[in-house]
Amino acid sequence: MSPPTAARVLERKCHAGRASKGRTPQPVHRTAPLVELVFPALNSAWAMEVMCGVVASGVDVVMSAAAGRRTSWAVDLVKARRAGVLLVTCPISAAERTVLARAGVPLVHIDPVDAAADLLSVAATNRAGGVSATRHLLSLGHRRIGFVGGPRDVLCSRARLDGYRSALDRAGIAFDPALVRHADFTSEGGRREAHELLRRPNRPTAIFAANDEQALGVIEAARSAGLSVPDDLSVIGFDDLPTAWRSSPALSTVRQPLAEMGRQAGRMLADLIAGHPPATDRVELATELVVRSSTMQPSAR
Amino acid sequence: MSPPTAARVLERKCHAGRASKGRTPQPVHRTAPLVELVFPALNSAWAMEVMCGVVASGVDVVMSAAAGRRTSWAVDLVKARRAGVLLVTCPISAAERTVLARAGVPLVHIDPVDAAADLLSVAATNRAGGVSATRHLLSLGHRRIGFVGGPRDVLCSRARLDGYRSALDRAGIAFDPALVRHADFTSEGGRREAHELLRRPNRPTAIFAANDEQALGVIEAARSAGLSVPDDLSVIGFDDLPTAWRSSPALSTVRQPLAEMGRQAGRMLADLIAGHPPATDRVELATELVVRSSTMQPSAR
Repeated sequence: MSPPTAARVLERKCHAGRASKGRTPQPVHRTAPLVELVFPALNSAWAMEVMCGVVASGVDVVMSAAAGRRTSWAVDLVKARRAGVLLVTCPISAAERTVLARAGVPLVHIDPVDAAADLLSVAATNRAGGVSATRHLLSLGHRRIGFVGGPRDVLCSRARLDGYRSALDRAGIAFDPALVRHADFTSEGGRREAHELLRRPNRPTAIFAANDEQALGVIEAARSAGLSVPDDLSVIGFDDLPTAWRSSPALSTVRQPLAEMGRQAGRMLADLIAGHPPATDRVELATELVVRSSTMQPSAR
Repeated sequence: MSPPTAARVLERKCHAGRASKGRTPQPVHRTAPLVELVFPALNSAWAMEVMCGVVASGVDVVMSAAAGRRTSWAVDLVKARRAGVLLVTCPISAAERTVLARAGVPLVHIDPVDAAADLLSVAATNRAGGVSATRHLLSLGHRRIGFVGGPRDVLCSRARLDGYRSALDRAGIAFDPALVRHADFTSEGGRREAHELLRRPNRPTAIFAANDEQALGVIEAARSAGLSVPDDLSVIGFDDLPTAWRSSPALSTVRQPLAEMGRQAGRMLADLIAGHPPATDRVELATELVVRSSTMQPSAR
C-alpha cells in the first residue's frame, strides 16, 4: 500500500463519523504498552486528530494536558510505570529527559517545539508547506503577501516562515519584515495581527497564516475592515482541520497529515519499548496544498 | 461555587487555547486511578470536550474507540487491570456487564444509549433541551416545524423528540409524523433528511436538528434548495460545539455541558473505585438555549 493510500485509510478510520453510535464497544487489550500522550491543552480538533492516529498505532494511550500542572511530571510518569511518552508540541528540560532515560522510559516528540539534534521526532514538512502556500499565492499574481506566524520560538512556525521567505526569494521579491507578524495559534491572535497588517497604507493583497485557526481570525479581521475574502484579500492557512472546509469562504490551506503523524510516532515508540531502535531519528511527513475558495488573483487596484 | 460558575471555570480550563504551546508539561501522577474511556469513534469535537472534562476530574484516562474492534472487550479491560470504565454513547451487553462486575471494575455511562434502570449515568437534560429548542421556534411564530432526529433507538435522540412533541402539544399544534425524519448524527444525514422535508409542498418554516452536525447539513440542504437561512428557513441544532458559532449564519442551538458531563462522570467513577457508592445513579445536567443568527420569525408567504 502506498503511503498516500495508507494515510487515506487511516483518515477514514479516524473520521468514521458518529454513525457508529450505538455499536457494541470491543477495544482490544492484550499486550499493548501503556504510553502517556501529553498535549499543551486538550481542546482542539488538532489534538483529536493526532490522538486518533496514536490510538490507531496500537498502543494504549493515557491522555494528559501540560497546562496548569506543577509537580515533576517526569518522576510521576516513571512512578505511574508508563512504558513510554509522546510529547506533542511540548518542550522538555535536560533534567526531565535524564529522569526518563534513567528509568528506561523512551520518549518520542510529535511536532517538536525545538530542533535539538538527539530528539526522536515525527513532524510535517513545515518548511516545504510554507513554500507551497506562498508559491500558490505568488502563482495567482500576489506580490505583497503578509505572514501571520505562530510564537517566534516554536519550530513549526519558524519553518513555515522560512518556507515563506524562501519562496519570495525564488520569485525575486524582497522580504519585507513589516509584513510579518507573530501571535499565538488562535483565531484571536490571527485577527489581531491581520488587523495591524490591513491598516497599513500599502496593505498586503494576501495573507498566509501559520495555522487554520489564525486564518479564520484573518478572515474576521478582513470583514471588520470592510474587505471581502477572496476578492479583496486572499487568505491561506495551515493544518486542514474540519473548520477549514466549513469556513465561509472555504479555506485554502496546507494539509498536515496529523493522524498519520500520530500513528507513526506511536509505532516508533512501540518499537522503542520493544527494544528496537528506530530506523531514523527524525521523520518528516509530506504536507499537501489544498486550494479552496479563500484565494484568488489580486483585484486591480 | 454555584454549578454554572464551576462549569464556566471548567470551560476555561478545557478551552484554554493553543496559546500554551511551548509550556513545560507537568502532569500529575500519584494515585490517580487508570480508567478506560470508550467512544464509538475518536473523531469529533464532541468527544474532545467530554474527554477534557474526564481528564479534569483527576482520573488517568486511557482512550479507546469501539468502532471496528472484535474480541471480548470487557475481558480485555479486566486483564489490562483498568480501575474503571466510562462508556460514552455505547451500549453494553448483560454478559459484558457481568464480566466487569465479577472483576469489581465499576462502570459509568456518559450519554447512555438506553435507559436501563440500574445503570450509573451522566447525561444532559435532553428532553428539556428539546422543549426549549422547539419553544424558541414557536415563540418566533413558527407553526410548521420539522425535526431531524438521530438514530431512532438512541436515548438522547428519543428524548429530544419527546421534548419537541411536548412543546408542540403545549402550543396546541398537532404532531405531524411527516415532519419527523431520522438519520445518523452527521451533517450528511442532516442534509439528506432536510432535503426530503424541504421538497414537500407544504414545507416546514423551521427545522430542529438533533445535533449541530446535522444542523449544518440542514443549512446546506436549504442552500441547495435556494432557501436562505434564516429568512426562508430557521434552523436550530443541539450541542453547541465550536462549529455552531463559526457557521455562517452562526447557529442557534441547545448547549450541552459536555466537559462538565465528563468531569462528573469521572468523579462518580473515582468515588466508586475508592469504594464510595454514588449519591445518585442518574445525573442529568441542564442544557441551555443559545440564540444566534440561524433562527428568526417566519417570512410571510
